[in-house]
Amino acid sequence: MSSDPLPPEITAVTTLSSADARWVELQKIDWKDQTGKPRIWEVAARKTRGSSGIDAVAIAPVLLHPSRPASTLVVLQFRPPVAATCVEFPAGLIDQGETPEAAAIRELREETGYEGKVVSISPTIVSDPGMTSANMQLVVMEVNLKEGDPEPKQQLDDGEYIEKVVIPLDELLDRLVEYEKNGHAVSAKLYHWAAGLDFARKRKW
Amino acid sequence: MSSDPLPPEITAVTTLSSADARWVELQKIDWKDQTGKPRIWEVAARKTRGSSGIDAVAIAPVLLHPSRPASTLVVLQFRPPVAATCVEFPAGLIDQGETPEAAAIRELREETGYEGKVVSISPTIVSDPGMTSANMQLVVMEVNLKEGDPEPKQQLDDGEYIEKVVIPLDELLDRLVEYEKNGHAVSAKLYHWAAGLDFARKRKW
Repeated sequence: MSSDPLPPEITAVTTLSSADARWVELQKIDWKDQTGKPRIWEVAARKTRGSSGIDAVAIAPVLLHPSRPASTLVVLQFRPPVAATCVEFPAGLIDQGETPEAAAIRELREETGYEGKVVSISPTIVSDPGMTSANMQLVVMEVNLKEGDPEPKQQLDDGEYIEKVVIPLDELLDRLVEYEKNGHAVSAKLYHWAAGLDFARKRKW
Repeated sequence: MSSDPLPPEITAVTTLSSADARWVELQKIDWKDQTGKPRIWEVAARKTRGSSGIDAVAIAPVLLHPSRPASTLVVLQFRPPVAATCVEFPAGLIDQGETPEAAAIRELREETGYEGKVVSISPTIVSDPGMTSANMQLVVMEVNLKEGDPEPKQQLDDGEYIEKVVIPLDELLDRLVEYEKNGHAVSAKLYHWAAGLDFARKRKW
C-alpha cells in the first residue's frame, strides 16, 4: 500500500429492492403450520450460493508452538452491515466448484498467511434460521509452528484490509469481551465457541 | 390441541420487495473503504429492533440435578427460512421496553417451562455481520433441579410447536451431528458453543 489506510466510513443507508440487489434478496415464504393454517415468513437469502449448496466456511484455527501457549487466530475487518470493525474467525464464501475443505485452506492462507491442516469439519449448520437461509461449515484447522518460524504474510486483494490477531485459547473469551468494550463488534459464532470453551475450562461436571 | 400436529409444509417462495416486508428489509450501504474508494454493501436488517438496540437473546441453559449428568436444553422448531426443523438454544426477540435478562427468563419459561437464574450475559454480539445487521446477547442460565421435580410445562402460544430436549453436556456435539444426519438443521451458534465445549474437554494445553 502506498499510503496509510483511512478510517472506513458509511456515507448513506437506503432501502434496496430485491430486483436491484446482486448479493442478497428478500423472499416471502408461504407455508402451512402444524394445524394446517397458511402462514407467511420473511427471509433474506444469498444470491451467490453455488452447487455445493453451502454458502460459506469459517475456520477455527489452533496454533501449536513449542514455547508459546496454544492459541487461536481471529481476524478484524470493517463490516458495513454492523458499521464497525468486527472480530471473527477467518471465513469466506465458497467459490463455485470448490470443496469446503479447499475453501477453508484458501481462506486461512489469504486472510492470515498460515498454512493449516484440516482436523475436522462440521456438518452444514445454519447461521440465523429465524431470519435467513444462510448456511456454513465450521472447519477446525491445526497450524503446527516451529521455533523461529517467521510470521507469515497475508495474501489480501488490493483494497482489502484484514488484521489478524493471535490469541491464547485461555484468554479468548476475556479478549472478546474487551474488544466489544473498545467499540468492536464481536461475531456471535466466534463468541459462542469461546463461551463453550470457557465454560468447559471453568466447570467440573 | 384437539388433533395431532401435521407436518409443516412450504407452499411457495417468492421474491419480496422491501416495501411489502414487515419484519425484514434490504438496505444498500454506501461506504468509503480504507483507500477512500466508494463501495457498496448489501445488507438485510430487522425492522423490529426496539429501543434496547438489541434484536434478540439466546439462552445457554445449564441443568443441574442431584443424580443426572449436567445437561443443557435445546429446542426443535420448524424454521421456514431453512425449510427444516431446526435445533437451537431457546431464544427470541426482545420485546419493546424489555431488558435482555427479562427476555431470557421469559423465553426459557415459555419455550421449555423451566425457571432459571441468569449466571452471565454476553456483550452485544453480531449474528452474521457479512450479511445482516442482526445482533443478540447470549445469556447463560442455571436451572437447579431437585430429585423428583416434575417435568415443567411449556407456555406456548396456540399454533406454536416447539419441542424441548434435555441433552447431557458431554454428549452435546455428537447429538448435534446426529440431528443433522437425521435431516434436522442445526444452529451455527449452538454448534459453535458445543464445538468449543468439546474442544476444551478433549484437548490438553
